Amino acid sequence: MSIGPDDVRALARGCAVLGAGGGGDTAAGILMAETALRAHGPVEVVGVEDLPPDGVVMPCGGIGAPVVSFEKLEAGDEGDRLRDEVERLGRREVVALMASEIGGSNGLVPIAWAARAGLPVLDADGMGRAFPEVQMVSMELAGIAPSPAVLTDERGAVVVIRASEGAELERLERAVCVAMGGTASGADYVMTAAEARDATIPGTVTAALRIGRSIEAADDPIGALVAGIGAVPLVAGKVVDVERRLVGGFVRGAATVEGLRTDAGREVRIHVQNEYLVAREGDRVLAVVPDLITVLDTETADAVPTERLRYGQRVTVVGIPCAPVWRTPRGLEVAGPAAFGEDVAYVPVERLRG
Amino acid sequence: MSIGPDDVRALARGCAVLGAGGGGDTAAGILMAETALRAHGPVEVVGVEDLPPDGVVMPCGGIGAPVVSFEKLEAGDEGDRLRDEVERLGRREVVALMASEIGGSNGLVPIAWAARAGLPVLDADGMGRAFPEVQMVSMELAGIAPSPAVLTDERGAVVVIRASEGAELERLERAVCVAMGGTASGADYVMTAAEARDATIPGTVTAALRIGRSIEAADDPIGALVAGIGAVPLVAGKVVDVERRLVGGFVRGAATVEGLRTDAGREVRIHVQNEYLVAREGDRVLAVVPDLITVLDTETADAVPTERLRYGQRVTVVGIPCAPVWRTPRGLEVAGPAAFGEDVAYVPVERLRG
Repeated sequence: MSIGPDDVRALARGCAVLGAGGGGDTAAGILMAETALRAHGPVEVVGVEDLPPDGVVMPCGGIGAPVVSFEKLEAGDEGDRLRDEVERLGRREVVALMASEIGGSNGLVPIAWAARAGLPVLDADGMGRAFPEVQMVSMELAGIAPSPAVLTDERGAVVVIRASEGAELERLERAVCVAMGGTASGADYVMTAAEARDATIPGTVTAALRIGRSIEAADDPIGALVAGIGAVPLVAGKVVDVERRLVGGFVRGAATVEGLRTDAGREVRIHVQNEYLVAREGDRVLAVVPDLITVLDTETADAVPTERLRYGQRVTVVGIPCAPVWRTPRGLEVAGPAAFGEDVAYVPVERLRG
Repeated sequence: MSIGPDDVRALARGCAVLGAGGGGDTAAGILMAETALRAHGPVEVVGVEDLPPDGVVMPCGGIGAPVVSFEKLEAGDEGDRLRDEVERLGRREVVALMASEIGGSNGLVPIAWAARAGLPVLDADGMGRAFPEVQMVSMELAGIAPSPAVLTDERGAVVVIRASEGAELERLERAVCVAMGGTASGADYVMTAAEARDATIPGTVTAALRIGRSIEAADDPIGALVAGIGAVPLVAGKVVDVERRLVGGFVRGAATVEGLRTDAGREVRIHVQNEYLVAREGDRVLAVVPDLITVLDTETADAVPTERLRYGQRVTVVGIPCAPVWRTPRGLEVAGPAAFGEDVAYVPVERLRG
């Protein structure tokens, strides 16, 4: 299959749902992808089996605090620069791009870059959602080397980082990203197609597109979404409190949703670090990372990213089971509650439902 | 000529004088250089005319706040990693190392790395002193490309930065250095020997050694120093106030020296950003960057780096004329008072003497 300009909005809706509040507002990604697809033609979506086993797959996307990306657009050739540098470092051609994270704008950016480059995108990503830190990818769990990583900015600076492990890479990438103005474009965990087979979360581009189409077509968008992907409704109501601050390159904060109608009298509080991390009702945990917590507009089922939350919004909060790899001991070590400093035991969202 | 382990302490004393308070306390550099010279033999000190014109000269040293380097030692192979990366990036062999700054510990570190590498050091540097920012080098004035720059740390991480201009490189290097724990080892403004001829400040390694020897041998070390290098005595007295804080990877602050004996009743205040930048007596400027302001122990003429200043020290403050290139319009733009936010017109220190 291929993705053309007319698919972008549906794909974006699906990416936003999978973003769990993060990955960047899709507005910028929609603009980039539509423009690139109109100029350069559609992008093929391929499986690892369609690629030469030793061909290089480049995971890529934006890094940085989503709140900044509203005001700081890219120059356009960031993807070209990343690919040139990855090819120079590896001395081999890149055969496909892949979203490091399918969630939010980061599910769309690689489509734009692939269109410019005339390359396919892999129907997979490294998260099956969005996560705030660069080492929180399935490639880390599979033992793919994180380095060399490449960052670039809209002024053309290029930074190559070789770090021995993912957490060190995260620290260095974050510092460079902040120095680049709060956001940057990056590629890391570069691998071969053969390695990608067991190191990525398959099918997530087509899944995002399917989610977007199901919402678009439905009379009851929330109902369609819940039924279509096995989401667990947590609360429906209105946003009554939003705290948000930019700390060390991340958006941190919390939001409170007060139940309405059948949920009247309930109050759910959600912790944020770029993404929605934990939803609690009083002392009771309703959903916790790595499961996805997504805040949807109650009427349209459009996902509301953390930086778009505001007082009075009518929202429905849902939990979505994460990709199975995140529920393994190593998955929980890298991206479970403790990795975010949350003192909560992980229980799958579908079992938390009382 | 060559430098062996027995030359290191004299060289270090000269480097400290040329450090204008910065470039890092020489204790760590002495240890590194003596150890490497004992293990690997002496290092040749050469002129550009001794090198093949198209051979690569690698300017290098430590970057970061001097106060941190007391507590964070290097692994030993940082110089090897920098050279490997510079050779890989340029696809040519490095034929000589050069101190990016002759001042402080950074005048000694390249000697240690050159001994390990079996390479000569160039009798030159990029500052003729120490400066706090990476673009404040004669290579910047000569139009040498600052990138690719390489940074590495004691854990083995390597970061390559390509920036279009020196100020952007400074911002990115500083961010990486802070993320690496406050100090890092780096190489930038890599050039050929032919380029180095007009882009460096010649003779500064032998000058530092000569300064050190002159102090060691003298009955009146301060007198010998002042006579030997045309220094201008500014005040002799004791340190009565020190302010110092670590801000954005720099040591910033001020020190006050109260005159004693023939200087009784005088009070001189010195502004600091890693180095001593401006010395004032009331409203009157006594010396200002890019001229060197050096604080000497009154008895031994050992230079006191900014991070070693403490209440009660008996010191003599001297001004030393900077290398001529810093007095050109472009030199003053890059490293004159305004580059440090100091609202002072530059007047050569030898003319300020009333």
